[in-house]
Amino acid sequence: MLRYRVGVLGATGAVGQYLVSLLADHPWFDLTEVVASDRSAGRTYAEAARWRMPDEIPPPARELIVKDLESELKCDLLISALDPAAAETAEERLANKGFPVVSNSSNHRMDQDVPLVIPEVNPGHLDAIPVQRRNRGLAGGLLLTNPNCSTIGLVLALKPLQDWFGLEALQVTTMQAISGAGLDGISAAAIHDNVIPHISGEEEKLEVEPKKILGDFDGEQFRPAALAISAHCNRVPVLDGHTESISVRLRTKATAEELSAAFRGFRAEPSVSALPSAPARPLVLTEDDLRPQPRLDRDLGGGMTVVVGQVRPCSVLDWKFTALVNNMVRGAAGAAILNAELLVAGGWVVRS
Amino acid sequence: MLRYRVGVLGATGAVGQYLVSLLADHPWFDLTEVVASDRSAGRTYAEAARWRMPDEIPPPARELIVKDLESELKCDLLISALDPAAAETAEERLANKGFPVVSNSSNHRMDQDVPLVIPEVNPGHLDAIPVQRRNRGLAGGLLLTNPNCSTIGLVLALKPLQDWFGLEALQVTTMQAISGAGLDGISAAAIHDNVIPHISGEEEKLEVEPKKILGDFDGEQFRPAALAISAHCNRVPVLDGHTESISVRLRTKATAEELSAAFRGFRAEPSVSALPSAPARPLVLTEDDLRPQPRLDRDLGGGMTVVVGQVRPCSVLDWKFTALVNNMVRGAAGAAILNAELLVAGGWVVRS
Amino acid sequence: MLRYRVGVLGATGAVGQYLVSLLADHPWFDLTEVVASDRSAGRTYAEAARWRMPDEIPPPARELIVKDLESELKCDLLISALDPAAAETAEERLANKGFPVVSNSSNHRMDQDVPLVIPEVNPGHLDAIPVQRRNRGLAGGLLLTNPNCSTIGLVLALKPLQDWFGLEALQVTTMQAISGAGLDGISAAAIHDNVIPHISGEEEKLEVEPKKILGDFDGEQFRPAALAISAHCNRVPVLDGHTESISVRLRTKATAEELSAAFRGFRAEPSVSALPSAPARPLVLTEDDLRPQPRLDRDLGGGMTVVVGQVRPCSVLDWKFTALVNNMVRGAAGAAILNAELLVAGGWVVRS
Amino acid sequence: MLRYRVGVLGATGAVGQYLVSLLADHPWFDLTEVVASDRSAGRTYAEAARWRMPDEIPPPARELIVKDLESELKCDLLISALDPAAAETAEERLANKGFPVVSNSSNHRMDQDVPLVIPEVNPGHLDAIPVQRRNRGLAGGLLLTNPNCSTIGLVLALKPLQDWFGLEALQVTTMQAISGAGLDGISAAAIHDNVIPHISGEEEKLEVEPKKILGDFDGEQFRPAALAISAHCNRVPVLDGHTESISVRLRTKATAEELSAAFRGFRAEPSVSALPSAPARPLVLTEDDLRPQPRLDRDLGGGMTVVVGQVRPCSVLDWKFTALVNNMVRGAAGAAILNAELLVAGGWVVRS
Repeated sequence: MLRYRVGVLGATGAVGQYLVSLLADHPWFDLTEVVASDRSAGRTYAEAARWRMPDEIPPPARELIVKDLESELKCDLLISALDPAAAETAEERLANKGFPVVSNSSNHRMDQDVPLVIPEVNPGHLDAIPVQRRNRGLAGGLLLTNPNCSTIGLVLALKPLQDWFGLEALQVTTMQAISGAGLDGISAAAIHDNVIPHISGEEEKLEVEPKKILGDFDGEQFRPAALAISAHCNRVPVLDGHTESISVRLRTKATAEELSAAFRGFRAEPSVSALPSAPARPLVLTEDDLRPQPRLDRDLGGGMTVVVGQVRPCSVLDWKFTALVNNMVRGAAGAAILNAELLVAGGWVVRS
Repeated sequence: MLRYRVGVLGATGAVGQYLVSLLADHPWFDLTEVVASDRSAGRTYAEAARWRMPDEIPPPARELIVKDLESELKCDLLISALDPAAAETAEERLANKGFPVVSNSSNHRMDQDVPLVIPEVNPGHLDAIPVQRRNRGLAGGLLLTNPNCSTIGLVLALKPLQDWFGLEALQVTTMQAISGAGLDGISAAAIHDNVIPHISGEEEKLEVEPKKILGDFDGEQFRPAALAISAHCNRVPVLDGHTESISVRLRTKATAEELSAAFRGFRAEPSVSALPSAPARPLVLTEDDLRPQPRLDRDLGGGMTVVVGQVRPCSVLDWKFTALVNNMVRGAAGAAILNAELLVAGGWVVRS
Repeated sequence: MLRYRVGVLGATGAVGQYLVSLLADHPWFDLTEVVASDRSAGRTYAEAARWRMPDEIPPPARELIVKDLESELKCDLLISALDPAAAETAEERLANKGFPVVSNSSNHRMDQDVPLVIPEVNPGHLDAIPVQRRNRGLAGGLLLTNPNCSTIGLVLALKPLQDWFGLEALQVTTMQAISGAGLDGISAAAIHDNVIPHISGEEEKLEVEPKKILGDFDGEQFRPAALAISAHCNRVPVLDGHTESISVRLRTKATAEELSAAFRGFRAEPSVSALPSAPARPLVLTEDDLRPQPRLDRDLGGGMTVVVGQVRPCSVLDWKFTALVNNMVRGAAGAAILNAELLVAGGWVVRS
Repeated sequence: MLRYRVGVLGATGAVGQYLVSLLADHPWFDLTEVVASDRSAGRTYAEAARWRMPDEIPPPARELIVKDLESELKCDLLISALDPAAAETAEERLANKGFPVVSNSSNHRMDQDVPLVIPEVNPGHLDAIPVQRRNRGLAGGLLLTNPNCSTIGLVLALKPLQDWFGLEALQVTTMQAISGAGLDGISAAAIHDNVIPHISGEEEKLEVEPKKILGDFDGEQFRPAALAISAHCNRVPVLDGHTESISVRLRTKATAEELSAAFRGFRAEPSVSALPSAPARPLVLTEDDLRPQPRLDRDLGGGMTVVVGQVRPCSVLDWKFTALVNNMVRGAAGAAILNAELLVAGGWVVRS
């Protein structure tokens, strides 16, 4: 297969380091540009990144010179892990310059002409790209986003229920890992031996993003799913892996066996399953009555598999269960790379 | 005031150590008996207890000889922190022998003639004691129970909402501390850097106990409150303090201000406020937008105050908020001692 | 007794919050000034401090207006918890303006005319103050410092050994708590489930400060104790309390019983024991073969007591043992307040 | 290559689970027997093991029937992770029945005719096997042991220093992970937010085992290295990875550069490097001034590489540095498997 040159925006941060790590030995992509803030620019990636991953910096990345957001970039595709402040103008500007930009940032997720995609759930939302290009006067460039880390775990767990039974309402309480806050996002003195019952902006994302993803694109605009969502977001002292306690009300009543069958039967469509970063199983139902657990289950499928378990009746809505998502892989870096692969497979990226 | 001699059952366990600690320098009670399993019996309390509290063993307790459950006990009142297996027969047997038994164990909580009491919430349920004595043929003995640790935090937060607006339904997701599992209840290898989404029997307790407590005793039997409850229970790596994410549907719609006013205005009745272990405020509403947090708030009011915060609208039910309860004090040892004080104040304990 | 007006420098930081908390209800001191960086100046203390203590902000402190370092200060005495960058010039400048400055900062600890004092160990080092005033041309002002948090724990444990047997050499390996790094000093992503085997500048402090403290002031200068010290400093995921594994070589050989007797017999001189913040026992030898432990022992004596244990022979030096110090109280805020009390008791502070 | 049938003793415990996991897809070994206590015997391995590893139970192991220690075992070689009580008689009995027994248990480590081997350090100690067989009247059976987990990390770091400069004395303070205590070895309530300054029997092992390993086998008996060792052992709240602060006195003085060169140049002999479980590098010197750290470095070389760093002068002995060993892989299960491979490569195992 042809290979594509990829640039990573925000390459020195926590998600950026995961991107650099996951792009090593990628069958389609060569990492050719690492972009970060002015402070890092001009140094090698090995110097600029305070590398925090257990494996070593991939050798091809070590000596790349970090560029700033204004530099000329030699690549066919950009994957962005910029923080929202930096992403705000940079991503649009780079799309205007002709780059397909696949972003993990929250800025454009809810834009009316930007697809918010989990490839196993709503790959058809790429159909909005021509509308986006027309609206924004883009030539080769485009913006594609992946959802918030907690949203991804939630929606992958909900998708089979939506398909089989329809969803009417849901309550979700998250117990989110500290890595989700970034390398220095939360001090040890704050979260040690503690739970923090608030994460800025998180509940809002979790209450709107799933409706867009589980909704339709009608050729002109996105039609959100009719679904009431209430979210409680908490930070807990766990390194990686967001745990979610979920209750759902279904449109068609179901038995526990039907629910389990829906979870077990869930598969991506074949064109998505064939993508290099797609896990063998996007969703696994555990039988262990003490799982899913973040420390034990966060690395299943290389961190790309969401694990559900604890299915039991809910006396307020219909059913309750627990979902677990690796927030750094499936919930961020892996999500963006899978979206980039989906773009390439769909012919949206041109090798220059 | 007259002083009462108190015996502690299960005195060497985690809750038992809290009882011994809290009973030191008690204005009404003298600890005269410490009772534990056969293995500990015959040794001094200092030898038998693997003491894990930050303060030292209270000097009067150090040299007490640990007795087993079959021994003759010299006291006016027993407080039980027995595990359910030991409590099953022992508590009834001791009530039959004439002891008022105030228990933290779950065995008799839902018995039709046993009051399940939080003094600030349902002190009137002591009216069931004459029925209990008649049913069971008890002379001076009686059984009084306090609820599960998570239930106590939940119900203290719900009580003002029930009084002001009526409660129709609620969802609660708990993030429970490891001390709740006892001294050796959960291994570090299991919970370190982890969340465990299941606690045996806990959701069942949380779904039934609040209805009894918030319901009425009609002179003959308990009439549970009509209220749908759905609970998700999780263990998190926090030492002390259970955090609960709660959503409620009210019978009478309310504004955020009315809700806050209800929380703020909540007081125990004066006879209860006057008990030695009653905190100045049983419920406090925090204004800090990152609280309540277990590490910062669990010791408020000496661990007897429940802290609520994060009040905001719920898009599935009506309102959501967070509650925090010190599971070892308000949720266990302090709860039992406050119940013992309530019994004494009500004249149910005879000084022999 | 007359009361003294105290100002706290660096009042919004981690140590500053401890100072404000410990000064509430102080028998000699009234907190009249809270001083912090420009960013906080002009706001009330309640607004400026992100309060992280378990107890509430003491009411008298809540409404104090935070001043910056250039403001005029109305007080008789300053206690400084400034970070080293801010302390560098500010403390000397304020001493020059006539304030007795009692500092927890490291800047002036090793100055040839500044006493580095633990009141139970070397109160006589205050004799250097006249030399300091002469050298620096100070009128009423002076500089007094307390040692590094790990040094304080180490030296309190060493002092009886030095007195009874003489010390020749020692190895110490610290396992230091995260609170020692300040409110935001270490990110959760760095220390969670981890040990960090380096703390900037810490080993150097631990290798020189004890020699000054255990040495003499000869009327003109400090004569450091002849003692070889080697330190390994590690950060561990514990909130409060530094644990130290110590091996010592003595000048006079001793038995285990003599060593224990030395630890047990250690007392401050009576004038120091009488200070309001002096604990009943500055040093306690635990008999528990699994202690001292930070979580269980850090609050002994209100956090002012150092606990030693695990005394056993060392096959390289002579003896080994473990010491535990509450780094925030005895190791920082409490140390400075005790030094301030020592100054007052010695007549070095003038009530203006 | 011929394949060998391997049985694992103590297969359901923490180290046993690592053994089963590491033996999956092993190039030489087929796991054919899983042996555990009576309680587990007769059930499938999947039923009997409370599996705690992040990856799933290897399919070939799932359906193996757990046998007890008295059962007939069909295998060419046994690897033992029995606890000391069970190992005491079982290992000798099985060696007497003709099995080569490679043990991680401590029982026979210091026996005068049992090799205590780290293949990269003292493979020549296998020469003691003929003596052992003669002494004990063993036919095909034999006993081979690997050291304690902390010893392995220490000795791999010391070996190049011993070879280049000679070792005279050393101080080591360990900060040991909770997984070293087994699945239920330490309760969360004990170690959470804490350090425990004592591990039963650990210091004794660390003070004697290195001398045997770094010493010689003279054809008849082991001659321990002349080396004074003093150990302080602490438990810290880290899941995996023992960190060790080490100070050494060398026989020949060395510079920092020479020390680093010794660490960097260390390699196993080629016959050992060629073993399937031998890492590319048994010892790596990190340049990062904040490492080694357990969370970041414990999985280097698949958990078989020891990482050293922080090399700096010691003012009591000569040099100090930090070492990090994965206690479950290099320190236990991987150590035993590497020893088993060494035995096979040396022709000590007969395929029946």
